[in-house]
Amino acid sequence: MSVLTLVPEGQSAEVPDGLTLREALARLGTEVLAPCGGEGTCGKCRVLVHEGAAAPLPEENALLTPEQLAQGLRLSCRVRVAGPMQVEVPASSRRPAMRILPGGVNRPVPIDPAVTKELIHLEAQKLDQPWARLEHLRFSGELRADLRADLDLLRRLPALLDGEPGTFTAVLREDRLLDVERGDTTGRCFGVALDLGTTTVVASLVDLTSGREVGHAAVVNRQTTYGHDVIARINHTIEGEAQLEELRVAAVQSLQEVIDQALEKAEVKRDEVYEATLVGNSTMMHLFLGISPLSLGHLPYVAMFNDALEMPAHQAGIALNPVAWLYMLPEIAGFVGADTVGAILATSLDEDEGRIRLMADIGTNCELALRHGKRLLVTSTPAGPAFEGARIACGMYAAPGAIEEVHLDGTVKLKVIGGGEPRGLCGSGLLDAGAELVRHGIVDETGRLLDPEEVQNPAWRERLIEQEEEERALVLAWREGEPPLALTQRDIRELQLAKGSIRTAIDFLLEKTGLTPDDLDEFCLAGGFGNYLDEHSALRLGLLPAMDPKKIHFVGNGALVGARLALISRDLRQRGALSARQAEHLQLAGTPDFQMRFAESMLFTGGAQ
Amino acid sequence: MSVLTLVPEGQSAEVPDGLTLREALARLGTEVLAPCGGEGTCGKCRVLVHEGAAAPLPEENALLTPEQLAQGLRLSCRVRVAGPMQVEVPASSRRPAMRILPGGVNRPVPIDPAVTKELIHLEAQKLDQPWARLEHLRFSGELRADLRADLDLLRRLPALLDGEPGTFTAVLREDRLLDVERGDTTGRCFGVALDLGTTTVVASLVDLTSGREVGHAAVVNRQTTYGHDVIARINHTIEGEAQLEELRVAAVQSLQEVIDQALEKAEVKRDEVYEATLVGNSTMMHLFLGISPLSLGHLPYVAMFNDALEMPAHQAGIALNPVAWLYMLPEIAGFVGADTVGAILATSLDEDEGRIRLMADIGTNCELALRHGKRLLVTSTPAGPAFEGARIACGMYAAPGAIEEVHLDGTVKLKVIGGGEPRGLCGSGLLDAGAELVRHGIVDETGRLLDPEEVQNPAWRERLIEQEEEERALVLAWREGEPPLALTQRDIRELQLAKGSIRTAIDFLLEKTGLTPDDLDEFCLAGGFGNYLDEHSALRLGLLPAMDPKKIHFVGNGALVGARLALISRDLRQRGALSARQAEHLQLAGTPDFQMRFAESMLFTGGAQ
Repeated sequence: MSVLTLVPEGQSAEVPDGLTLREALARLGTEVLAPCGGEGTCGKCRVLVHEGAAAPLPEENALLTPEQLAQGLRLSCRVRVAGPMQVEVPASSRRPAMRILPGGVNRPVPIDPAVTKELIHLEAQKLDQPWARLEHLRFSGELRADLRADLDLLRRLPALLDGEPGTFTAVLREDRLLDVERGDTTGRCFGVALDLGTTTVVASLVDLTSGREVGHAAVVNRQTTYGHDVIARINHTIEGEAQLEELRVAAVQSLQEVIDQALEKAEVKRDEVYEATLVGNSTMMHLFLGISPLSLGHLPYVAMFNDALEMPAHQAGIALNPVAWLYMLPEIAGFVGADTVGAILATSLDEDEGRIRLMADIGTNCELALRHGKRLLVTSTPAGPAFEGARIACGMYAAPGAIEEVHLDGTVKLKVIGGGEPRGLCGSGLLDAGAELVRHGIVDETGRLLDPEEVQNPAWRERLIEQEEEERALVLAWREGEPPLALTQRDIRELQLAKGSIRTAIDFLLEKTGLTPDDLDEFCLAGGFGNYLDEHSALRLGLLPAMDPKKIHFVGNGALVGARLALISRDLRQRGALSARQAEHLQLAGTPDFQMRFAESMLFTGGAQ
Repeated sequence: MSVLTLVPEGQSAEVPDGLTLREALARLGTEVLAPCGGEGTCGKCRVLVHEGAAAPLPEENALLTPEQLAQGLRLSCRVRVAGPMQVEVPASSRRPAMRILPGGVNRPVPIDPAVTKELIHLEAQKLDQPWARLEHLRFSGELRADLRADLDLLRRLPALLDGEPGTFTAVLREDRLLDVERGDTTGRCFGVALDLGTTTVVASLVDLTSGREVGHAAVVNRQTTYGHDVIARINHTIEGEAQLEELRVAAVQSLQEVIDQALEKAEVKRDEVYEATLVGNSTMMHLFLGISPLSLGHLPYVAMFNDALEMPAHQAGIALNPVAWLYMLPEIAGFVGADTVGAILATSLDEDEGRIRLMADIGTNCELALRHGKRLLVTSTPAGPAFEGARIACGMYAAPGAIEEVHLDGTVKLKVIGGGEPRGLCGSGLLDAGAELVRHGIVDETGRLLDPEEVQNPAWRERLIEQEEEERALVLAWREGEPPLALTQRDIRELQLAKGSIRTAIDFLLEKTGLTPDDLDEFCLAGGFGNYLDEHSALRLGLLPAMDPKKIHFVGNGALVGARLALISRDLRQRGALSARQAEHLQLAGTPDFQMRFAESMLFTGGAQ
């Protein structure tokens, strides 16, 4: 052990000999930059060693000038502790400070995007500067030593740098020089986070210099023409390569459309966007890339790939700046996709904060993730589209005109999105309606809508009607010249299926880890649905197990927030990849008593909330 | 410090606490594989820790199964020494053994090419194996965990793996899965080392499984149509982009032609070649890639790029297996290119062996490299094309019919390549002729060919003739019906210029490092010329400073040998890159007394050899 002292702070600590200076400094809480990962190739982890340094190593001779070495500048990833040392860490070598991510989820992250811009004042190259033009650019901008340029840029570089001396802006992505732009363009550097949903495609445009969202847009996935769920889309590709190509093009067009809408609103040009991140379920990821998803359509329901992928955006057909890259978050299992990894990041489930936390991302497919100490467990269950308003007689998306809240207090009180006349029922309204009908005994525990004669209150009795094919229904709103907005027996069965499926998965996950609902410190609900969900209704109906409603938090579209986090923080990108590998996937459908559990969970037996 | 014991060997040593196990094992002389560079992402550095292990770290949980961890398998790049440990290193985690490189330069290197093949027996995926198909392939082949596949391969993978279960061959390049081939193709894996010379283009086809050369071919660079030296070619590109493109296409066609010739002779298919390495001077590298070389044509004579480049071979226009990559060795300065880095590797000048060694790579441009302790110094000088037979009245390349040796012992004795009638004079013959004429006093110290009346021996006197424009010449061979093969006064001046230029550079480099010729432990001569050079003539003429002829060694085409070394050894590839960065470039032309030195060096004042 030797004493390491940080100057001018004066802070010091005993650290084991043999550690690199960078590792040792980390123990003092001082993180030193190392874009190359501490491999001794980028030269960015420079520190000033005032006392205790041995002779320079070959990598230091290669990356530092004799003048710099004479000053005491050293590479902290190379120098090892072997006695008492006094070290100063220049501001330029320190990790960027923490900033709170504005908007969305309140997860503090350092704004550290993959793509950055660097202003370079290029002097004319002198006779005693015989190095390559690219080196000259590197030196002038103090860029990392292991920076590399692609062939396309190298071909453009001679003409580009023809105007030197002058001001240039380097566009950097990790160890890549993506581009060199004339003049100072450092103020304009954007990225776009994308959520390719089975039904809805969303773009969030982010200013990479501040981490702020500057634009947002949503469109319907053009693939819906070919079927409303992933199984229908997978089946479409069985027909052949042309069909796979149809779905690929539809996905690409949907993404380009939503990107362009977000750009237009924010008055940002395609050329000013240098990075995209993408989440979606496994099937969407496959179709978007033109990779056959057939293996996801039959046992054992596996993807072709799980890992995070990155590639030039144009290679995937997305038009941004021509040098822009696309990063696709990793997947965990066939039906626990990149969207779930995004939601895990959004809810900090990648970290062990010492609290037991469960997250449910509710969509046509519902994914669950549980953080329990060092373990991260995930499972998924097909919830059905009821909560997205599909397969519900008067169902609709959570758009203007949708009933989002239902209260039955002697009479029927509705809250409609955007005010105005109700046009249909969205997921949260469906949940409320179900919960209220159970509370008033109009729907029994088995989910049966009572006959009018079984109901005592005449107000309810007159709303119980019979529709086509003798189907019982409860009128939520009478409308002039139109059939009434009514909740049918079949709708209630759909709600039961969805609720039963989700609840079964929650119970399964808790049981597998020996936990009770009371052990949970937090329950995060994610999804377009969850954003507007009434936790009391969810508890009353038994969608969630009985727990303190204060523990339930809504995180909105967690998948998209995760994509945005991966856009502005390389650290979270890595944490997402690590979480995807570490997560233990529990297969729910294969458990022997699944059917029994599911049947039980379908009953409307919630708490007394 | 703690005691680390290697079992079952029983070897042990004290190592500092805090080192990673992999670093500590290296101190015991046991190198553990780490394709990811010790980043904890590939999972290939597994060792069995029998005693002294702490709890697994997150990366280990992610990359090792619970069963493997229970066995004691750990990642040696993550686990740190913190007390006595007993460790076993499985054969699969050890670095490949050293083998002597057959043929060419006798530098022992481990056969460790960038591209390798791995046989995989793929079982059908079971229900309890819910991971992606790509993961299944990885697990089955025990491939590195951070392996990634490009989009093209991912698109082909579903159809490719359709035939599973079965036997497949994975084609791997570092962390990339390049391809998956049906059946066992592990026996066929080739690479090609390329030397793109200004005049001659050479290919050496190598079996990457054994490191052996299996084919060889040489063609004339098609660019010679546009000028015989690099300045002429650079000037051609001034005219515009079409001219740059002409030169690019000529280079690509020359390389493809020489590759195809080597393939045909060796009965290897293009599809069986997965990697190419390329050396050449900076101008050739620029032209081949279609990058304007104009900055090399004017002060301060700099390249656009110096670094090693790698890219898919097809991107540069070279047709091999469609997934093949091209690696271009780095450059040091504008006129010290990748060919010099190749020659440095061929002569082990990248290493400090404790001996002072100088290497001259003689071509139209001559580059010198000096290893002196930790320093590697390089310089270059324009030698002119005399030693390649150009600009010499009866000059020719070292091909059949060329006079390669000249002895004047009372009469003229010639040695002709391939026997038969002499057709011309190649570089080594020119050197011999010059040395002999000086020895016999027919050429004086200033390089003047004597008048016949100044010569006493009648045998020489009758050979001294006058050619067109009253130019004095010495007849080497009379030919029937043809003008005699004669060495002209102008030829001797060309020899003087070349010799003077090279010698100036040698003296300059020695002087800069305070060395005398006697301090040199070895002098390596590289180049097509050097291969046949008579060291006594070189010493006698003063091309080389006086030294023990036993210290002079010929290494042949060092640039090409270096390209071959970079093809079969990733370690040497890295060493080449490091050397290129570390090398100190000394600018000869800029030194104040250059002209004076040059004038002196032109005198034919060699040793008494």
